[in-house]
Amino acid sequence: MPLIVQKFGGTSMGNIERIKHAAMRVIGEKIKNNEIVVVVSAMSGETNRLLDLALQIGGSHNNLATDMIISTGEQVSAGLLSIALNNKGYEAVPMLAHQVKIKTDGSYGNARIFSIDIENIKKELDKNKIVVVAGFQGIDDSGYITTLGRGGSDTTAVAIAAALNADRCDIFTDVEGVYTSDPSIVPEARRLDKVYFDEMIEMSSLGAKVLQIRSVEFAMKYKVNLFVKSTFVDGPGTQIKFSSKEDNMEELQVSSVACDKDEAKLSIRGIPDKPGIAAAIFSSIADAGLVVDMIIQNISVEGFTDLTFTVTKKDLKKALEIAQNIGKQLNAKEVLSDDKIAKISAIGVGMRNHFGTASTMFSALSKENINIIMISTSEIKISCIVELKYAELATRILHEAFNLGLKNNGNCNNK
Amino acid sequence: MPLIVQKFGGTSMGNIERIKHAAMRVIGEKIKNNEIVVVVSAMSGETNRLLDLALQIGGSHNNLATDMIISTGEQVSAGLLSIALNNKGYEAVPMLAHQVKIKTDGSYGNARIFSIDIENIKKELDKNKIVVVAGFQGIDDSGYITTLGRGGSDTTAVAIAAALNADRCDIFTDVEGVYTSDPSIVPEARRLDKVYFDEMIEMSSLGAKVLQIRSVEFAMKYKVNLFVKSTFVDGPGTQIKFSSKEDNMEELQVSSVACDKDEAKLSIRGIPDKPGIAAAIFSSIADAGLVVDMIIQNISVEGFTDLTFTVTKKDLKKALEIAQNIGKQLNAKEVLSDDKIAKISAIGVGMRNHFGTASTMFSALSKENINIIMISTSEIKISCIVELKYAELATRILHEAFNLGLKNNGNCNNK
Repeated sequence: MPLIVQKFGGTSMGNIERIKHAAMRVIGEKIKNNEIVVVVSAMSGETNRLLDLALQIGGSHNNLATDMIISTGEQVSAGLLSIALNNKGYEAVPMLAHQVKIKTDGSYGNARIFSIDIENIKKELDKNKIVVVAGFQGIDDSGYITTLGRGGSDTTAVAIAAALNADRCDIFTDVEGVYTSDPSIVPEARRLDKVYFDEMIEMSSLGAKVLQIRSVEFAMKYKVNLFVKSTFVDGPGTQIKFSSKEDNMEELQVSSVACDKDEAKLSIRGIPDKPGIAAAIFSSIADAGLVVDMIIQNISVEGFTDLTFTVTKKDLKKALEIAQNIGKQLNAKEVLSDDKIAKISAIGVGMRNHFGTASTMFSALSKENINIIMISTSEIKISCIVELKYAELATRILHEAFNLGLKNNGNCNNK
Repeated sequence: MPLIVQKFGGTSMGNIERIKHAAMRVIGEKIKNNEIVVVVSAMSGETNRLLDLALQIGGSHNNLATDMIISTGEQVSAGLLSIALNNKGYEAVPMLAHQVKIKTDGSYGNARIFSIDIENIKKELDKNKIVVVAGFQGIDDSGYITTLGRGGSDTTAVAIAAALNADRCDIFTDVEGVYTSDPSIVPEARRLDKVYFDEMIEMSSLGAKVLQIRSVEFAMKYKVNLFVKSTFVDGPGTQIKFSSKEDNMEELQVSSVACDKDEAKLSIRGIPDKPGIAAAIFSSIADAGLVVDMIIQNISVEGFTDLTFTVTKKDLKKALEIAQNIGKQLNAKEVLSDDKIAKISAIGVGMRNHFGTASTMFSALSKENINIIMISTSEIKISCIVELKYAELATRILHEAFNLGLKNNGNCNNK
């Protein structure tokens, strides 16, 4: 019997009516003679409410007790969906991390899954029951609850699908799939029938919030047959898949354009140029737990060099303090910061086979007089930092420049 | 090192400030060089909120999924109190039923504890940590969460105290201990320094809501050194203890007067008197899951008999239907019901050694022209059903008749 893992996010669990609606989605697959495991998030807003309680009393994000508190949201959802299914005449049981034996490391608030013991799930599936697993949670070696970080229920779903060797893993959300760009910025944005794992990973890290990046990496590693679908609208959704040779034949250069307004940049200017400067700066930044995204070091002019890098906006203050200290130590001329920037990225595995993606991008931006502040590239994406005020405009320009809005444009991503 | 189990109820966990206050109570005992295990209830109102969610989506009270949902309230409390303790510099860990291994039967919503494995608690105590256990919950054979019924956290605390062979079990609540009567009815009601287990069990079943009756039975069975104390006011509280010979020497006749307005009575009148009538009626009532409290069958007059019994108000409708059916089958003349009644009880192990408790009670009521509708007695209590409108008056009259309001009245319960 085919086995399908379905995952419902917080919006899909938003209230009693929506949970009943999700139950109908579950039953829709069950009556097709599939075995079903469902993974649920907390009702929308619930994790924040619980986290807020923990912080109010003086808790921190990465703490055993905080994880015990914030994991209750998924526990409630699992119970509620099970009841909704039972009431429709389908036997369902809710299961928690200690029952599914989702073993993780002890990194509270951001734990990694070591192993899943599928025995208890199998036992219930064998009794023809639908198993509803509380997402987001695991247990450490001592049986304490851990949580997997924001969006962790995606990872739970994919990990269970991998452990059960499921035929499909459907991630239900409030959008109809993965889009060529954010439809709230680009009205012409289209749902993609498929997206490659490589692309999805770039998109997840570049501001597209459809799937948690770890869940995509997990699905890629364990070859999970992954789909993103809408809870509310019937439709094919988007398949996240590996690229095959046929796909590559007539592939489009770029499959999506992402916009990320959550970065800020810092520049340390006029640093006396010596070996080891970048190492000194970035090891201090890393020691403080800050993640640097883009880095540019320009060519040394008369023995001085400038270094510019970006961090997330919430890390800016801390990064600035560190940069100012180091600037002093290195006798740099000045340290500047700017949080009025946006990162616009074009993503597509097709770049590997098409030349000129960068030049298409740069000329489209220059035609509208949008200045490019920083550039960073990988094999399948190009990101440009532009002034924040151009964020939406630049996104729309690139979406058009790469013909993403046109239906039947020969893009095998939407054939 | 002495080991103390402390239990905090929903009011004591009512909000962040109160949880911090409870933390100070915990620390107060910890700094006296005690080992501490704390058992917590859900924040007040939380269990009802969660139960309401479960019922809204169509769940029932005694259901696996409902238990998984409503048990989260205690989980959150355990996490919050642990954080509060950690922030004051005292290492604390929250623990759940699957970690403490509180094994129960599978009666969801009203489970009974089979066993507790103290190994994990001991491990944390040995590291000098305060262990904060989520009350109200257990796990069944398959690892599913069960709940112990309303007030179940009391039972958790007492069971853990018994398993750990604790030196003391303090139940913290919003009153200063066990009172001679309900202070909202009888302003002269006094806190008792001690109450005997027998009395406490009668009081718990007669409308005094200080302790869940099962927790008292449990404490009695396992000889737990049990106290009821106030979270908010410093004081000695009330000790629940076994009676000893010295205690009995100068003991007061009655130690408390309870008032219960939650019963209703039914009468089946004019039943042709044959053997087996009472059995027929009460087996039907029991089969429907209804609990009968008092029963009176009067002497048969000319071959006819009347039968009167009481049930809780919420069971009245169902009991009435059953009584009407049986009345027809037995050719009874009529079936009457009345929910405008109250049960007033005088409780005291001293009754065993004092004669005349009943006559004191009856004459006190008759002096105020309060008619006694039904009477039921046990070795240590006398209950009278009176008209509802006399509930408070009758309670005050008896409280005075037994001299419960007087300080230094020679009552060893308050020496």
